[in-house]
Amino acid sequence: AILEALRTPPLAAPDSTGPLADTRVLITAGPTREAIDPVRYLSNRSSGKMGFALAEAARALGAEVTLVAGPVQLPTPAGVSRIDVVSARDMLAAVEARVDSCDIFIGCAAVADYRLAEIAEHKLKKRGDEALSLSLVQNPDIIARVTDRPAPPFTVGFAAETRDMARYARDKLERKRLDLIIANDVASPGLGFGADDNAAVLYHFADAPSEELISHSLTPRRKRDLATAIFDYLLTRYHRAPLSATAGSPTDP
Amino acid sequence: AILEALRTPPLAAPDSTGPLADTRVLITAGPTREAIDPVRYLSNRSSGKMGFALAEAARALGAEVTLVAGPVQLPTPAGVSRIDVVSARDMLAAVEARVDSCDIFIGCAAVADYRLAEIAEHKLKKRGDEALSLSLVQNPDIIARVTDRPAPPFTVGFAAETRDMARYARDKLERKRLDLIIANDVASPGLGFGADDNAAVLYHFADAPSEELISHSLTPRRKRDLATAIFDYLLTRYHRAPLSATAGSPTDP
Repeated sequence: AILEALRTPPLAAPDSTGPLADTRVLITAGPTREAIDPVRYLSNRSSGKMGFALAEAARALGAEVTLVAGPVQLPTPAGVSRIDVVSARDMLAAVEARVDSCDIFIGCAAVADYRLAEIAEHKLKKRGDEALSLSLVQNPDIIARVTDRPAPPFTVGFAAETRDMARYARDKLERKRLDLIIANDVASPGLGFGADDNAAVLYHFADAPSEELISHSLTPRRKRDLATAIFDYLLTRYHRAPLSATAGSPTDP
Repeated sequence: AILEALRTPPLAAPDSTGPLADTRVLITAGPTREAIDPVRYLSNRSSGKMGFALAEAARALGAEVTLVAGPVQLPTPAGVSRIDVVSARDMLAAVEARVDSCDIFIGCAAVADYRLAEIAEHKLKKRGDEALSLSLVQNPDIIARVTDRPAPPFTVGFAAETRDMARYARDKLERKRLDLIIANDVASPGLGFGADDNAAVLYHFADAPSEELISHSLTPRRKRDLATAIFDYLLTRYHRAPLSATAGSPTDP
């Protein structure tokens, strides 16, 4: 029995007195892959590390965590429920099946904006020296679908940008009616996609009737430490705005 | 000193009496990634496992092995030199720098046939509800560049197909003037891309003046075992055709 105990990986002790006890958190992580044919695909450089770190941090704070993960090479954090998906439409289906029973939704996945208009059933063959054109259509916007629901959860988005972070973050916050957006500059060497470190700027609107944009900068650190710092700040906003009050968010026109 | 020895990972013992002793083998493995913008890319489902297994097998048979690897999540086999690349053009440059000093070239990488006509410097933004079209141009054909050289090595290609394996394999063998082609059906569940198991059919032309296509089937097994079986067969062809004789290959018109 002692050996048995040694072999069993320790489950993360759910902190039943933690600030997220009795809170259900749904997180998306990683890229999505959009098939071109049976072997080729479109994707992006998201490693999933940030979303997995957020899942681990939420669990440590006592939350019941579900992680919807695109194709990534990462172990599931202890005590977290994981659903693996491939395409943006798969991810949307997994989110829609669970979002009405969550309190906080964090859309951390780098969802492909576009997919192929048509997926080839067989591997495309190269033809002579011809160029090729791929026709793409827009994927559903998962996070906008979440905030469009009758009683949306507290919703957090991400903006991975290579320039003009504040402008894009403000636009996304308004347009998708988010409670909080976490912007990071993926062009910084050693930070962001694929890296173990990340920095972020958190943006949200001040409480109504003000429409002031509030920003909160988090300097570069391990993604795990950044995840904890994000929840520290998120909790100040979440507890201010209980679930029943989010329908009348300060960003409503 | 005993602890020291325990901590040091064992180097693969180069078998100086093995059938590939004093033979330099250059292998490409994995997919290539073709950037769309700083975060998005085109790629394919190759995991690199087959190419890495071939590198390990060649090393165990006594060869000096160089592995040119696209973006994969695999450890380098002990005793193998590894060069990491991203795009098809990176891979071509790495191969061209080394191919003239190799005896056997195995093009196992799933090189992207196409790349973007233009790579966006900043992340592309979604515009309204518009569809999008990506313009692609052909990538250089690495294996054809190898066999086009004045004194090409013994050259082995791969054909990952979802149908009509024999027809495509024959065509590739002729068109790219390969010594051997290894065809596998990537549509079989549990085999091929990403899987640990694989099956293959090896094709080559009978010795001149015959133009008969010879095939040799290898049933499904672990990729490591398949790699060893591929070298068993490859050696019967390689030793038949010493380097100096490959210029007049039976596939020449």
